[in-house]
Amino acid sequence: MIGEIHEECGIFGIYDNDGLDAARTTYYALYALQHRGQESCGIAVNDNRTVVFHKGVGLVPDVFNEVILNHLKGQMAIGHCRYSTTGNSTIENAQPLVSKYIKGTLALAHNGNLINSQQLRRELELNGAIFQTTNDSEVIAYILAKERLRSSSIEEAVQRSMGVLKGAYSIVLMSPEKLIAARDPYGFRPLSIGKIKNSYVIASETCAFDAIGAEFVRDIDPGEIVVIGKQGISSIRTNCTGRPNLCIFEFVYFARPDSVLEGASVYLARQEAGRYLAKEHPVEADVVIGVPDSGLDAALGYSKESGIPYGVGFIKNRYVGRTFIQSTQDQRDIAVKIKLNVLKAAVEGKRVILVDDSIVRGTTSKRIVSDLRAAGATEVHMRISSPPFLNPCYFGTDIDSKDKLIACKMSIEEIAKELGADSLGYLSIDNLRKIPVGANCDFCDGCFTGKYPMDVSWVDDYSKDMLEKSKE
Amino acid sequence: MIGEIHEECGIFGIYDNDGLDAARTTYYALYALQHRGQESCGIAVNDNRTVVFHKGVGLVPDVFNEVILNHLKGQMAIGHCRYSTTGNSTIENAQPLVSKYIKGTLALAHNGNLINSQQLRRELELNGAIFQTTNDSEVIAYILAKERLRSSSIEEAVQRSMGVLKGAYSIVLMSPEKLIAARDPYGFRPLSIGKIKNSYVIASETCAFDAIGAEFVRDIDPGEIVVIGKQGISSIRTNCTGRPNLCIFEFVYFARPDSVLEGASVYLARQEAGRYLAKEHPVEADVVIGVPDSGLDAALGYSKESGIPYGVGFIKNRYVGRTFIQSTQDQRDIAVKIKLNVLKAAVEGKRVILVDDSIVRGTTSKRIVSDLRAAGATEVHMRISSPPFLNPCYFGTDIDSKDKLIACKMSIEEIAKELGADSLGYLSIDNLRKIPVGANCDFCDGCFTGKYPMDVSWVDDYSKDMLEKSKE
Amino acid sequence: MIGEIHEECGIFGIYDNDGLDAARTTYYALYALQHRGQESCGIAVNDNRTVVFHKGVGLVPDVFNEVILNHLKGQMAIGHCRYSTTGNSTIENAQPLVSKYIKGTLALAHNGNLINSQQLRRELELNGAIFQTTNDSEVIAYILAKERLRSSSIEEAVQRSMGVLKGAYSIVLMSPEKLIAARDPYGFRPLSIGKIKNSYVIASETCAFDAIGAEFVRDIDPGEIVVIGKQGISSIRTNCTGRPNLCIFEFVYFARPDSVLEGASVYLARQEAGRYLAKEHPVEADVVIGVPDSGLDAALGYSKESGIPYGVGFIKNRYVGRTFIQSTQDQRDIAVKIKLNVLKAAVEGKRVILVDDSIVRGTTSKRIVSDLRAAGATEVHMRISSPPFLNPCYFGTDIDSKDKLIACKMSIEEIAKELGADSLGYLSIDNLRKIPVGANCDFCDGCFTGKYPMDVSWVDDYSKDMLEKSKE
Amino acid sequence: MIGEIHEECGIFGIYDNDGLDAARTTYYALYALQHRGQESCGIAVNDNRTVVFHKGVGLVPDVFNEVILNHLKGQMAIGHCRYSTTGNSTIENAQPLVSKYIKGTLALAHNGNLINSQQLRRELELNGAIFQTTNDSEVIAYILAKERLRSSSIEEAVQRSMGVLKGAYSIVLMSPEKLIAARDPYGFRPLSIGKIKNSYVIASETCAFDAIGAEFVRDIDPGEIVVIGKQGISSIRTNCTGRPNLCIFEFVYFARPDSVLEGASVYLARQEAGRYLAKEHPVEADVVIGVPDSGLDAALGYSKESGIPYGVGFIKNRYVGRTFIQSTQDQRDIAVKIKLNVLKAAVEGKRVILVDDSIVRGTTSKRIVSDLRAAGATEVHMRISSPPFLNPCYFGTDIDSKDKLIACKMSIEEIAKELGADSLGYLSIDNLRKIPVGANCDFCDGCFTGKYPMDVSWVDDYSKDMLEKSKE
Repeated sequence: MIGEIHEECGIFGIYDNDGLDAARTTYYALYALQHRGQESCGIAVNDNRTVVFHKGVGLVPDVFNEVILNHLKGQMAIGHCRYSTTGNSTIENAQPLVSKYIKGTLALAHNGNLINSQQLRRELELNGAIFQTTNDSEVIAYILAKERLRSSSIEEAVQRSMGVLKGAYSIVLMSPEKLIAARDPYGFRPLSIGKIKNSYVIASETCAFDAIGAEFVRDIDPGEIVVIGKQGISSIRTNCTGRPNLCIFEFVYFARPDSVLEGASVYLARQEAGRYLAKEHPVEADVVIGVPDSGLDAALGYSKESGIPYGVGFIKNRYVGRTFIQSTQDQRDIAVKIKLNVLKAAVEGKRVILVDDSIVRGTTSKRIVSDLRAAGATEVHMRISSPPFLNPCYFGTDIDSKDKLIACKMSIEEIAKELGADSLGYLSIDNLRKIPVGANCDFCDGCFTGKYPMDVSWVDDYSKDMLEKSKE
Repeated sequence: MIGEIHEECGIFGIYDNDGLDAARTTYYALYALQHRGQESCGIAVNDNRTVVFHKGVGLVPDVFNEVILNHLKGQMAIGHCRYSTTGNSTIENAQPLVSKYIKGTLALAHNGNLINSQQLRRELELNGAIFQTTNDSEVIAYILAKERLRSSSIEEAVQRSMGVLKGAYSIVLMSPEKLIAARDPYGFRPLSIGKIKNSYVIASETCAFDAIGAEFVRDIDPGEIVVIGKQGISSIRTNCTGRPNLCIFEFVYFARPDSVLEGASVYLARQEAGRYLAKEHPVEADVVIGVPDSGLDAALGYSKESGIPYGVGFIKNRYVGRTFIQSTQDQRDIAVKIKLNVLKAAVEGKRVILVDDSIVRGTTSKRIVSDLRAAGATEVHMRISSPPFLNPCYFGTDIDSKDKLIACKMSIEEIAKELGADSLGYLSIDNLRKIPVGANCDFCDGCFTGKYPMDVSWVDDYSKDMLEKSKE
Repeated sequence: MIGEIHEECGIFGIYDNDGLDAARTTYYALYALQHRGQESCGIAVNDNRTVVFHKGVGLVPDVFNEVILNHLKGQMAIGHCRYSTTGNSTIENAQPLVSKYIKGTLALAHNGNLINSQQLRRELELNGAIFQTTNDSEVIAYILAKERLRSSSIEEAVQRSMGVLKGAYSIVLMSPEKLIAARDPYGFRPLSIGKIKNSYVIASETCAFDAIGAEFVRDIDPGEIVVIGKQGISSIRTNCTGRPNLCIFEFVYFARPDSVLEGASVYLARQEAGRYLAKEHPVEADVVIGVPDSGLDAALGYSKESGIPYGVGFIKNRYVGRTFIQSTQDQRDIAVKIKLNVLKAAVEGKRVILVDDSIVRGTTSKRIVSDLRAAGATEVHMRISSPPFLNPCYFGTDIDSKDKLIACKMSIEEIAKELGADSLGYLSIDNLRKIPVGANCDFCDGCFTGKYPMDVSWVDDYSKDMLEKSKE
Repeated sequence: MIGEIHEECGIFGIYDNDGLDAARTTYYALYALQHRGQESCGIAVNDNRTVVFHKGVGLVPDVFNEVILNHLKGQMAIGHCRYSTTGNSTIENAQPLVSKYIKGTLALAHNGNLINSQQLRRELELNGAIFQTTNDSEVIAYILAKERLRSSSIEEAVQRSMGVLKGAYSIVLMSPEKLIAARDPYGFRPLSIGKIKNSYVIASETCAFDAIGAEFVRDIDPGEIVVIGKQGISSIRTNCTGRPNLCIFEFVYFARPDSVLEGASVYLARQEAGRYLAKEHPVEADVVIGVPDSGLDAALGYSKESGIPYGVGFIKNRYVGRTFIQSTQDQRDIAVKIKLNVLKAAVEGKRVILVDDSIVRGTTSKRIVSDLRAAGATEVHMRISSPPFLNPCYFGTDIDSKDKLIACKMSIEEIAKELGADSLGYLSIDNLRKIPVGANCDFCDGCFTGKYPMDVSWVDDYSKDMLEKSKE
């Protein structure tokens, strides 16, 4: 949990040629993208150049109701769901950002993180700008408004802006007459095109297409600008330079298993991770279990590869949400057990292989290992379906600061000891790169390797500071 | 969904000798029992003979907050979460029921269904009684108040009342000075005793004990009355007659996998069901998948027995709740996909074995089979981890009326055809009885066999009517 | 503020023969009766023997909305708004009380206070009854249910019950087929019949008739039972014995100025009170002001009689309600000024006559006098439009306990000194009785005189205790 | 009701040197200013350069609660309550507006209307600006941010901005270290300085000072900039040119009677208006009544001057608010009677003089006259305490468009006939100017005379269009 400039979000857009009810379709799509951000959400619709929007803090079902949806009429719509640190869960930062500029109304939603946003803010402020949010979206809107002044169209302004904006950004925006989607030239974050009947839709993940009955058309290319309007769909590819460098952690953790990113199934990728783990770090045991929900598929893969039976090690309580109440230290311990209970019958008297997607500080892993032992596990072998986190992410993944990352402070043996595990094995970076079977792209794995596809000397001091300093 | 007299609920009680905060402990326990009833919930506390309570329509996190919990101070507490048909989801029917009677205040929560409640209501009304709810709890409270007049203690009144109340009931109640738990002489519904430090707790399922860090002590016997007070814990066993006849559907569907009922693990029972299914109805296939959440463990068991790989066939959206909005017919189809999405990568081009816990009307199963085929499954073999529903349940399980039950209208072959499945196999009743490995009890399986442990000629006409007639 | 058994409430009923929308008409009427109770409210409708109801804590606009009103369909409706002490503002005590009894569903709302309710509760409990509220309504419903067993009709049961129920009660109730209104044989509380088109309505005050466009028909007689059904309207008068003994404080404080009670205008009665005050307690001054809202009309009467100009001495903030926040002692002082601000321009440099309806503890009056002096009033002469409170009310008016009533502890001169007033004059009891000009009734003025129209030896010990003991 | 650019609002600011709790003091002050705007409200606090704020749609008690107030800690605070047309009651337009600019955070609240805001927006947009609200506040913030670039302090930027901003504006703003208040050089809208202990406060009306126990210091001069900081209070007067041209309608309608504007009591001004009306338009009658609330004081003045008794002609229901439900045409008629009921006893059989503050379309007046006749008034003579509305207001008063104003379409005789009144008299403009007795200022009465203190050729086309065209 770093700062609010670091977000994982879900975005969606629709240009409706079939009377599908653009807002309601967006509402359904946001349900399917909710796992990418549970902090706030919003929908903006464009009805013949009039933009109406509704945003709120909370989950999609908390923010929208029948009355509100009925109020959101229009042919185009964009939607957003947002993850953020608690302190900044204000309504002001919810997206889409709707603003008036020289050419009318602009509605914008984005996923990713600019590495030069503080520098851009400063430059804009020196020119008299005022900022009402702490979102990168507001910076993007300003740059677009500025570039629009010397462009003959909004898409030209987007094209010019892409020369100014540095970092990771997948964007959907509505101008008075067009729906535009764009992906940064490095392709850090996913963005795809789908189609229902004669209407085009844009989404962060393909699971949103399934949810609304759309078919997948293709991924948007890095640097590509997709323009959807009366004349249909077209692309501007002047900023396109090469293959995507997709964040590989999307496969490990962010994306939903039923999504397909750059041609690779997330579900199969996770099973592959488990298979490679079994090859890299075999151990004799009686049962393989995963930490819900993101560790389950890798555990299944480990089981299949190793032949050790798969089991359900934990029951996750589906009713524990934001409003769960806890107070004293004693009750905090209880709270954890309410969220996640060990399924004793599955592990008692057994040698257990425990698969999780990552370890950050190690606190949660330590408690889980201890719970398994309390439930009667005779051995606990921990397997992690990604390499150790050793470096900051500048492109939107909210990893902890270096001095909090357990892997920056201890050797693997020391970590195993600290967690109370009988053994510990991480997936190697080489095998990690192989898990998205059939993926037609390169990857950003800078958080593991320290090598980033983009020159990170662009990262402005403020962002660097936020990402690298300690915080609680 | 029959009528409101048919409920599956969760109950909890605590007599706190350790300053644990009785209300908050109950709050945590209700989270763990929430799967037994999501319609309304409530907590009543007894602080030195003063009873304060709070009830509401909705989930535990919707009904309670910090302010309310802080207001609920007391040494004893009981809690309840309730399932009900939509039409009767009124605050009036929420439990616990708190009433004043000749000896002070009585708070009561129950799980189960009386078969003579209409007859008892009639008799009470003929004596001048008025009823403010449609709950069996109010009938029970009246009978207790009446029997209390000729009893020397509340526990004696409970004992006498058990001669009058016919049907299934697991009860927790607070008199001014005692916490009392009782289970009907047939033991239809589960009820267990746990202990934290020096404090006794009572719960419908053992998963509630895990949630609050309590250890399991033992199941309450059928007909047993457990009295907890200043003098500690004691039992009245005059109504105890034999082994429990626990509802076997608790193992198939109701209970949480991490609960242990009458000594048998629910998780292992479901895996056993899958194993027996694989033996009874083998078929060649490429993958075994389960319908979330209750079909998953049986699917795993089928996979293990058959050697056919286990897969994750569906992603269930965890954010779709009560307030999900749908409207037109088109959107209703979409809604289904948002709740449950087929994981195409897991089934495409494969022969699929689909495991579910039961089929009621068949509508949902038909859609799931069709979705699997649309995702590329080449064959779909359906396996059900219980026998066909053929008879009404008079003891609290809300099965549909006979004319809506698909198994009452068609042969198994006809059902398979109707669902579009390549084959269909139900678990046999003989094997069903074997799945709760190590269970120290008999079972009620009347909904499958038509044979009930209790004389159902006691079922009053009103209840019979409600259970057997058609409704939409 | 005594206990919850002491309530001033508003009740309403309609038997709709014109398709007026019974619930909505009741909703409008409750707005007009809201001044009689702001604590909770409710509406029950009877649609062809099916009773649906909605109740809640709060004002009419807080408890009802469009969706709820649309759900309340039926030909008959009754409504209630309730005043109560804070501690008991629970939803459980909201009215109407809807209960099932031997003959179907009974919905009941009442205004007043029984003096033998504790004794009746005890008797019922000895017969096995349970009580879920602390309302007299539940006692009345029980008595009705009991008497119904030996009566041939609900109206006969009402008639018999009136022999058992002692105290003040104005009631509206719905049986499956009839709307019934009844007033206790002493006629303590008002109750009137009105008519819209061909539909009869019943209300506590005539201002409710104005609100819904109904014409006033007549007041219900003490002891009268009015039965409205398919056959039209009829009366049972066997319990009628004489003239009403209407609570005279209705004219001084409770009723709305635009209501007419027993033929007398409340507005004119208050002006009369002011006129008599001017005659009894003349004083030289520059302006006459009233304490909003109930002192204003009397101040105007005083001004007219004395010839001293009327002025607006205070601005009452209309936005300060239930949710107003205050904290520290300093802020509590501020809070008072926010609610009521002295209009300096009206009193500065002037000799002021300040008219209020009553003094209870004297705390508020003291502060108001002090505020006037701070605003520059050179003299403050206080005039009270009723005699000193010296006795408890057993019939529904929530006066303070004797040891808190300033008039029980001090002489009038001492009170004036305590309040900081230059002089103080109360209206005499003789003149008070003359203020309801044209009223066709006697009055209960027991709180002033200690003489009650009913034998108060019937008051049960519990009630006496509640009314006479001290509380904070 | 014209467009959202036309607002009457209340503003408040505090620089707390006494540990008064700045947010809570602002909260109390907003209660006292609530009559100036009931649509939305907000408070921003500045705690050692960190600005925290909370805004919402609704009344002060709806938007704030204890938890929120406790969260708003700081030494400085500003608050705002806002009136607006329904369509624009969005949270986005709520004030204060908090934005980041080159020098840190700026929080701003204003009352009034710029006449060149559309032109300024256009110029800013041509420079790349984006706008997220439709408020003038955002324009002001931009101009301030721009001017700040070439100013050595925020107060210098305010001073420079006043050369650019045309129209009516009373402003409070917080820079990181200072509280600043400013009033436009014409002084259209009121703004005053008060003091509690050693802390200065700023408010739209003096009634806010009474509410929080502050003493009135003085009115801010037109063009004056008041700067409050660590060094105490100081003024910049370079833009001061002459006497205020206070909106005279503040005395007739907007301000609270207990406020004193430019040395004149609003209460006395309204009585004066009534006195002049009695002289200009005498008539024989039995009673003088006013339309609540703003017509009451003028009615009292008319009564005193004429010697005709004052009466209370209407009871206004204090519980009817925003959530009042109405539906059919029939029910709409009922709704009106619920809001305002004629007090029959006051007017029956009488010749009535009815005083109101103004007539816009005439619809409401017509209904009131008709209600009075229905209640038995034998004659109804209408008197209006201001001249006829004939012209648009460009400075913040939301008058209807010309084609809707009844006085633009009919002669006074025709209006009287249309309303059903026996006679009609408006206050003359000459006497209107005399009613604020002792006021040390000139007035803007352009809505009556068409003569404005400021050159209205500055009004930009968009605003002109909004103000002059018809709308429903």
